[in-house]
Amino acid sequence: MLSSGHYQILSVLSRSGAKSRTELAAELGLSKAAISALVRDLLDQNILSEQDPVYGAGRPSVPLVVRANAASFIGISLQDDPAVVVLTDLHGTTLNRIEVPRLADPEACVALLVKTIKTLRASLGKERGTLSGIGLALPGFVARDRQTCLACTALGWRNIKIGAMLAERASLPVWVENDAKALILGEQLFGPLKGSPDFSMIFVSHGIGCAHIVNGRLLWGNAGGAGEISHAPITVDAQKALPCRCGNRGCLETVASLLAIGNAARQAGLPTNTMDLTRLAAEGHSDALSILHRAGSAMGIATAQLIQMLDPSHVVVMLDPALKDGVYGNALQYEAESHILHWTNAHTMINFRDFEPDSFARGAASLAARYFIFGHGGV
Amino acid sequence: MLSSGHYQILSVLSRSGAKSRTELAAELGLSKAAISALVRDLLDQNILSEQDPVYGAGRPSVPLVVRANAASFIGISLQDDPAVVVLTDLHGTTLNRIEVPRLADPEACVALLVKTIKTLRASLGKERGTLSGIGLALPGFVARDRQTCLACTALGWRNIKIGAMLAERASLPVWVENDAKALILGEQLFGPLKGSPDFSMIFVSHGIGCAHIVNGRLLWGNAGGAGEISHAPITVDAQKALPCRCGNRGCLETVASLLAIGNAARQAGLPTNTMDLTRLAAEGHSDALSILHRAGSAMGIATAQLIQMLDPSHVVVMLDPALKDGVYGNALQYEAESHILHWTNAHTMINFRDFEPDSFARGAASLAARYFIFGHGGV
Repeated sequence: MLSSGHYQILSVLSRSGAKSRTELAAELGLSKAAISALVRDLLDQNILSEQDPVYGAGRPSVPLVVRANAASFIGISLQDDPAVVVLTDLHGTTLNRIEVPRLADPEACVALLVKTIKTLRASLGKERGTLSGIGLALPGFVARDRQTCLACTALGWRNIKIGAMLAERASLPVWVENDAKALILGEQLFGPLKGSPDFSMIFVSHGIGCAHIVNGRLLWGNAGGAGEISHAPITVDAQKALPCRCGNRGCLETVASLLAIGNAARQAGLPTNTMDLTRLAAEGHSDALSILHRAGSAMGIATAQLIQMLDPSHVVVMLDPALKDGVYGNALQYEAESHILHWTNAHTMINFRDFEPDSFARGAASLAARYFIFGHGGV
Repeated sequence: MLSSGHYQILSVLSRSGAKSRTELAAELGLSKAAISALVRDLLDQNILSEQDPVYGAGRPSVPLVVRANAASFIGISLQDDPAVVVLTDLHGTTLNRIEVPRLADPEACVALLVKTIKTLRASLGKERGTLSGIGLALPGFVARDRQTCLACTALGWRNIKIGAMLAERASLPVWVENDAKALILGEQLFGPLKGSPDFSMIFVSHGIGCAHIVNGRLLWGNAGGAGEISHAPITVDAQKALPCRCGNRGCLETVASLLAIGNAARQAGLPTNTMDLTRLAAEGHSDALSILHRAGSAMGIATAQLIQMLDPSHVVVMLDPALKDGVYGNALQYEAESHILHWTNAHTMINFRDFEPDSFARGAASLAARYFIFGHGGV
């Protein structure tokens, strides 16, 4: 059993990389003797390791790091069909992955996931750390207990206690989170923006997902709805507002999502996949250009609204590569930059990334890794 | 000098009202003896007082409260012209107020404020607590040091060290903040939403101000720009986008602000003040109706975007009474409620309030009161 002192050390090392006992003592306001005792426990349990001594003025210092092999985690993404299940180490590196059909029946879904977890567990090398927990990301709303799916349109779920069901069958603790929130928590723990206190992530898929880190913590909101920009209104012009699958009209999703692009392309008699559509646009096809330009512009307007609302240091936008490098990405960047106030040198950076289905599963694994490192959700 | 233990007691009592020594010991995880010693210091310094004992099972308990008269504060609002300067107690009650012209020259502005503070200080009754600090709210961007105004269009200020200038002349500590952020910090410390961890405030004036409390803390953003919805784009239709004084086009301010309403009314040959315009609309004047409906609808769309982005428990919208009770307020409410996802029972409440110029000055005073209560900005 680890104490809060052990968790404090793991948190610092996980957030800021290698540190010596002296640096840890200074940062945590504890005596060198207390730190040494806590570090000894963590070394004995193979959670920390010592790096080569650094020689400088005075005694050489020994940097301590969290071992990647200290523990392993399962991350499950139901963000899309097929579902992705990954096995990761404590540094967020994927050790193995399996795709399985995303089943809508909760019992069948859990049964298939448990079988998949067994296969992944059997593949775990002896040098690897014990499998310590499971994270599950899904495209819907999750209760504050991080166990219950309150609503998920894609799966038709309402108040499904998916966390408890899976935990019982897999005999491991499970944490459930909305897909966009799992994604940004994975970024905060393992990704390039680790350590940034204020950033947002957006991904464009059938719908549009979004989540924010604010003051160093996940912005969950009053009922877990923070980041639901897919159903934020994008137009003030009621005549132009299209009906949305949520029941409202004029949602961002009705213009800027893959679903919207596909619908508009179908109506124009064009191919609905983004690669063919972007190629047509690059060749100057006016309908293809117009559909992608309108979609990217709307996403750029929404990005500018986000920046004005929250002033993050970065907005990461994860896009299908064809969208990213074509007229959609250009229009997005142009509209976003045309509609933000430029009053300091501390501009928000808009970073495009390729849409990477595994990043949701890795984000899910990070939910379990957080409990290992912080002793609580850390969100 | 108060220690961190004293500040912990003041924070708890200020946030949650009267508590006994036993309750404080339980909440802060300290021994009854330690709490009693700390409370004794605070009673001796007239910062706390004891209320009448409450008799129940066991020994009677004595509720402790923070005394309103423990200290006094100056709050200055440069949100509009005239500037408002208030003198408040530690509970945020206004003891006295003076309006003065809002001077754009920083030296002249500080000189007039110092003179005003002297007058207010002289009016302070003997039973009142010492004047302990000054807060200043202004319609612009403030640096992280809470001393320097980085940019304020209304006053034409750039990098003005207004905090240090005022502190030196007034011989009191000064904290400077953006007007909307001062407003919401005042609400969090003194107002009806005290204790709510996630809420937003919007006010409609010449421009549109907005600020958020998230996870119990002010959302400041990467460079202090969080809440700048006045310059968020409101339309995707470039042809309809009006030029804004910020240099961009299509900002919310160009449609939904008092400035925008006045401009549109002037162009239509109508009275530009909201009371006459709302009266005309109530009588069925189609241009007046159209101007106010369009402005209120845009504000409603922006409110829905805020709710989808942040999922706050409340959005407080402070409006000119004529706007609040007429077609503007109705359109705002209608559009906001038509464009948010209704998926749980935990809906965001949209609360209208009358625009109250003094609430910016009281919010400014709360900046100084925070330092008295928390020993730091507490933001």
